[in-house]
Amino acid sequence: MTDFRFHPQSQLIQQQDSYQVTLYTAINHPYQKIFVRVEPDHEEWLIELKKPIVEGNWLKWQATIPISPHSPLTLYCFKFLLNDRQIYLHAAGESSRLPQKHYHFRINTLDKPPAWVKQQVFYQIFPERFANGDPSLTPNDQSYSYHRDGRKVLQKQWGEPVAQSHSGTGATEFYGGDLIGIEQKLDYLEQLGITALYLNPIFCSPSNHKYDCSNYFKVEPHFGGDQALISLSSKMKQRGMKLMLDAVVNHTSNQHHWMDFYQQGKGGAYHNQDSLFRDWYHFDNHGNYWSWKGVETLPKLNFANTEVQQAIYSGPQSVLKYWLKPPFSIDAWRFDVIHMLGEHNSAQHNAHYVAEFRKSIKEVNTEAYMIGEHFAEASQWLQGDQEDAAMNYYGFNQPVVAFLAKVDVPRYVPVKLNASDFANWLAEARGSIPFANQLAQYNLLDSHDTPRFTHLVQENQQLAMVAATLLLTYIGVPSIYYGDEVGLTGANDPDCRRCFPWDEQQWDQQVLQHYQALIKLRKQRKELQEGDLISLLELEDVWVFQRWLPEQNSLVVINRGEAQSISIDLSAAQYSHRYTQLHTGKQITVEQQQLILSLPAHSSMVLSSH
Amino acid sequence: MTDFRFHPQSQLIQQQDSYQVTLYTAINHPYQKIFVRVEPDHEEWLIELKKPIVEGNWLKWQATIPISPHSPLTLYCFKFLLNDRQIYLHAAGESSRLPQKHYHFRINTLDKPPAWVKQQVFYQIFPERFANGDPSLTPNDQSYSYHRDGRKVLQKQWGEPVAQSHSGTGATEFYGGDLIGIEQKLDYLEQLGITALYLNPIFCSPSNHKYDCSNYFKVEPHFGGDQALISLSSKMKQRGMKLMLDAVVNHTSNQHHWMDFYQQGKGGAYHNQDSLFRDWYHFDNHGNYWSWKGVETLPKLNFANTEVQQAIYSGPQSVLKYWLKPPFSIDAWRFDVIHMLGEHNSAQHNAHYVAEFRKSIKEVNTEAYMIGEHFAEASQWLQGDQEDAAMNYYGFNQPVVAFLAKVDVPRYVPVKLNASDFANWLAEARGSIPFANQLAQYNLLDSHDTPRFTHLVQENQQLAMVAATLLLTYIGVPSIYYGDEVGLTGANDPDCRRCFPWDEQQWDQQVLQHYQALIKLRKQRKELQEGDLISLLELEDVWVFQRWLPEQNSLVVINRGEAQSISIDLSAAQYSHRYTQLHTGKQITVEQQQLILSLPAHSSMVLSSH
Repeated sequence: MTDFRFHPQSQLIQQQDSYQVTLYTAINHPYQKIFVRVEPDHEEWLIELKKPIVEGNWLKWQATIPISPHSPLTLYCFKFLLNDRQIYLHAAGESSRLPQKHYHFRINTLDKPPAWVKQQVFYQIFPERFANGDPSLTPNDQSYSYHRDGRKVLQKQWGEPVAQSHSGTGATEFYGGDLIGIEQKLDYLEQLGITALYLNPIFCSPSNHKYDCSNYFKVEPHFGGDQALISLSSKMKQRGMKLMLDAVVNHTSNQHHWMDFYQQGKGGAYHNQDSLFRDWYHFDNHGNYWSWKGVETLPKLNFANTEVQQAIYSGPQSVLKYWLKPPFSIDAWRFDVIHMLGEHNSAQHNAHYVAEFRKSIKEVNTEAYMIGEHFAEASQWLQGDQEDAAMNYYGFNQPVVAFLAKVDVPRYVPVKLNASDFANWLAEARGSIPFANQLAQYNLLDSHDTPRFTHLVQENQQLAMVAATLLLTYIGVPSIYYGDEVGLTGANDPDCRRCFPWDEQQWDQQVLQHYQALIKLRKQRKELQEGDLISLLELEDVWVFQRWLPEQNSLVVINRGEAQSISIDLSAAQYSHRYTQLHTGKQITVEQQQLILSLPAHSSMVLSSH
Repeated sequence: MTDFRFHPQSQLIQQQDSYQVTLYTAINHPYQKIFVRVEPDHEEWLIELKKPIVEGNWLKWQATIPISPHSPLTLYCFKFLLNDRQIYLHAAGESSRLPQKHYHFRINTLDKPPAWVKQQVFYQIFPERFANGDPSLTPNDQSYSYHRDGRKVLQKQWGEPVAQSHSGTGATEFYGGDLIGIEQKLDYLEQLGITALYLNPIFCSPSNHKYDCSNYFKVEPHFGGDQALISLSSKMKQRGMKLMLDAVVNHTSNQHHWMDFYQQGKGGAYHNQDSLFRDWYHFDNHGNYWSWKGVETLPKLNFANTEVQQAIYSGPQSVLKYWLKPPFSIDAWRFDVIHMLGEHNSAQHNAHYVAEFRKSIKEVNTEAYMIGEHFAEASQWLQGDQEDAAMNYYGFNQPVVAFLAKVDVPRYVPVKLNASDFANWLAEARGSIPFANQLAQYNLLDSHDTPRFTHLVQENQQLAMVAATLLLTYIGVPSIYYGDEVGLTGANDPDCRRCFPWDEQQWDQQVLQHYQALIKLRKQRKELQEGDLISLLELEDVWVFQRWLPEQNSLVVINRGEAQSISIDLSAAQYSHRYTQLHTGKQITVEQQQLILSLPAHSSMVLSSH
C-alpha cells in the first residue's frame, strides 16, 4: 500500500498565475525531501514541498507551482527522495524513475467540464424501446420508406423479440416508444435515483435508431414532435434533471433534402451537379458520394464548406445552438462518431472542428456538457479544448468487460487480464487526461451499440452486479443503459435494443436493489463523485481500491473469482478507521491496520468511512 | 524471450496510399491469427496478416495498411490471438491488452530525417579546449570585456586546471583552442573512426563557451574567423565527413548590437525605447528585459516580431540559411534550448517556430539534419514536423547514468533501477517517437553541460567502457564527447571542458582500443545502425539485447555488477547460430538454443552473427 495520498483536483487552489498543490503522506514517512516537478518554460523545475504539518491521520505538504504560460495545460508530478533511490508519483501511478509527460498530472486551466456533471447519475434511453406513451403515434407501414429497396415499417408488439441483425427489419421494425412515454416514467427514474437522461437521436429520420437524420430542426413526429420534447424538458427541469441529446452531424440521411437520393428534381445534391448543396458532401469523379463506412444511407458531410459549418455549428440558428436555447433548453450534447468528421472524405482538421463545436455550444450555454462517442482511446480529444468527456468505452467499458467477462470489445474474443493488468489499464486511461475531465468521463457498461453486459457474462447476475459496483464507484459519471437495472439482457445490436419490460414480474429485484443502493450511496458520498482513486490490492481475481478525500473515503472490493479471504493493508493511516458496509449496514473497525475480509464468489463490497 | 521479430523501418514498403508491413514469428508459433491494427478514420480496423511463408529461421507474415489520410503520422500495432488470450506488440514492447496510442508504432510519412544520419559516428568538440592550431590567435586580456563588472580574459596554459564554477573565470579563461587546431587533428579523428563533428558555438562572442552570440554572421576571429571554417568544412568534405554547428537563437549576448547593453547611443534596444530593435526583445514596464533564466548577459529574442523571424530563419540571408550555403556548407544544426524559444517572454507558439525552422533549413538543403537540445523528454518535438532528433539526454543519457552510475541527471541524487526498469525506460522513450526518428536520435554519455561519465562512476574505466558499448550499439546516432575515448574525466561544467590531453602518456589505451573496436563494428554492421532492438534478458545487474535485421543480428551484453554466469534463451530461432565476439574474435556456436556466458564484473560483450 502506498503511504501517500494525493487528490489532484480539490487540493488545487488556483491563484493568479499559480496553483497551490497539497500532498498527504503517512506520519512515519521515509522521505528526506519531496519536490513537485514542473516545466513552466519546458525545462525542469523542482520545487520543494514545505515542511509538513499534521492533519488528522496524515502529514500535509504544500507548494506553489506556476501555471504554464505557453500552454492551456499545466503538467506536474511529484519526486520523493529517499536515501538510496527516488519515487515519482504521477497520474498513472508510481515509478522509480521520471514518468513520460503523457502521464504527468495535467491541469486544464481553461475549458474545464461543468461542475454539475460529476454529481449526476445518467440513464441512457433508446427512445423507440423505452415506453410507448401514445400508441396513436406508433409508426405503421405508411410511415416511412427506407433504403434503396423501399423497406416499409414492420410494427411489432411491445416485448416481441427484436430482429437479430441490421439487415432485414433491423432498422425498420417499430414498437412505438416515444418521448411521451419517457415523460410518463419520470417517477420511475427519479425513484431509481436517476438525475440525467441521455436520449439516442430523436430528430426526424426514417429508421428506428435515427442515426440517419432527415431534418435536424424537427423532433420525429412519431416520438411526439417538438411539443413532446418541450414538455419533457420542462418536466425534467422541475425535477432538477438534466437532458442530453444525440448529435449525429458527421453524416445525414440520404433522404435529407440536402442530398435527396431518392427524388430527382428537388434541388438535392445527388441528382444535381449544380445543386446548392453539392459541395456539402464529397462526390468523386463518378458522381458517387462518400458515406459513413460506405453505407449508402449515411452520406458524410463536408466540413470544409462554410455553409455546412454555419448550418451545423457556427450560425446563430445552427443545429447545435438551436436545441440548447429555449423552449428546448437541453443541457448537453453527445456527438456520434465525432472523431470521423472533417473535410471532404476524411477526418482532416478534425481537432479544429471539434474545438469549434465547443465554442459554439459555450456561446449559448457556458454550463453545457459535451461528450463524444469513441470506441477507441480518445485522450487527444479530452485535453480541455475539445470535448468534456468521451463515452468511456476505452477507459472503462472495455477494461471492465475484459476483466469480468474475459473478452475484448468490439470483437468479443478471449482476453486474459489479472487485477493488476486491469488496474493499470484503468490508471493509464485516466492518467493521460486532466483530472477535471476524468471526473466528467461518461462511464458505461453497455449501450445501444454493444451486447448487454449481462449477456457477456452468460446472464450471471452476480457478475453483472459486480460490474454495477464498478460503474457507480469509479471515477467519472455513471450511465445506466435502460433496463440494465432490472436485469435485461440482449446480444449485440439490434438485440441490445429490446423493449423495456414494464411487467415487474420480469425484473430481477436483487439487481434493482443493488443499483438503487449504489446510486443512493454515489449521491451521498462526495469521494465517489470527486475523490482520488488509490489501488490498494491487486490479486489474480480481486481488486481493492479506495476513493479518497482528506476528510472521508470509501473502499471498494471487486471479486470476479471464487470465494476467498483477503487482507488489506491500511497501515499508512495511523489511527483506527470505522467503516459501514453497503447493503448490510455492518460496522467494521480496523484496529491493526489490517482489514481481513471474506468474499463470496462473484461479489463486490463497498465500505464507507465514518 | 519473445518469439516474434519486427523491424518497423526497413520492413515497411511504401506504396501509393499504403504500407506493406512484415512481421516474423518463430516457426512453431502458437498464434491462431495475427492482425495489424490501424485507425485510418479514427476507428479501429483489424487487418489480418496473410498466411505466412518460411524464410530462414522464421515465418514471415505480411499485410498492407493504409496511410492515415488526415494526419502526417500513421499509427499501428499488432494483435496476436491465442486460444484464451491476446498479445499486442507495440513500439514500447508487448502487453496483454491494447496499448495507449502514445506507444503505437508510428510512421512519419513526410519529414523523415536524412538517410545519412544513421550511418554516422559523431564527435562533439568544445572548440576552445580541443586543439590550439594557431597560438597567435589565443585571446589575451585585451580581447574581450565580459559581464557588467568588465571581466577580462584570463589566459591559461594548455592542460592547466579549469575554473570550478561559472562565476569567477568560468566563462573568461582561455586556452587557445581554435578551428585550425580541429583541422590539424582530422587525421586523429578519422583514425578513431569519426565521421561527423558537432562543434559548440563558434560565432563571435565574448565568452569561451560562446552561448552568448554577439554576431551571428561571423566566425569568432580567435577561432580563426570565417576562413578557418571554410577551410575546415572543405577538408572535412574531402574526407566525407559531416559538420554540425550550434545555433543559439533563443537569446543573444547582451553585447549584440541589437541590444547593446553596455554602450549608449548606438541604436541598440536597451538604451533606446525607440530603437529599431526594441521589439526584438521583451521589455517590461520598468525597462527590464527578459533573459534566459534571468541571466543578464543572455537577453531572450521575441519571435513574435517578424524582423526577428526574418533575421533568424525566414529571410534569404537568415542565420540558419547563411551557414548552410557555400562556402561554409555545413550539414546540420544543433539548436540550443530550442524548447524555450517563442513569443515575448515565454515559449508561446514554440511548436510553430520550430516547424518553421525546419522548413527554412530544408529550403536550402533537403538533406540537412536538425537536432534540439532537450534535457527533458522531447517526444513532442520529434514527431517529424519539427526536429529530426534530440540531444538524447532523456532517452539515453539519463537512463544509462541512472543504471550504471546510480544517480539521476541533472541533480545527481541516488536512483535505483534494475535492468528491467532500465530497459523499460529506454523502450518507452523510443516508443513514443517514429522509428525513423529513433534511428536519428543523438545519443551521448556526457557533454559540455554534464559531468564526464567516467567522473560519475568514480573513474571506474571498466564501467565507462560498459557505457561506451551501450553508446555504440544502441538505436540512434552515437556522439562521443571529445576526450572520453582516452579516459578524460571532469566534474560538472566548466570542469567537463578540460583541454584535450595530446600527450599520449595520459591516454587510457584500453579505453581507446575499446572505442576504436566498437566504432569499427558500428560502421560495419547494418543492424547496429538500423536494426530493431529486442530485449532478451533483464536481471538485477545484467541486460542483454539484440539488434536485429532479418539477415543478421548482434547480441549486446551489459553487466554493471559482479562476475556472474548467465543463460540466454535463443529458442525462437529454430536453427543454430554462430557468433563472433568483439575484441577476442572468439567464435561461439549456439547449439541448444541456450547461450551460457561467463561475465566478468563491470563488463560488456558484443556478439555478431555470421
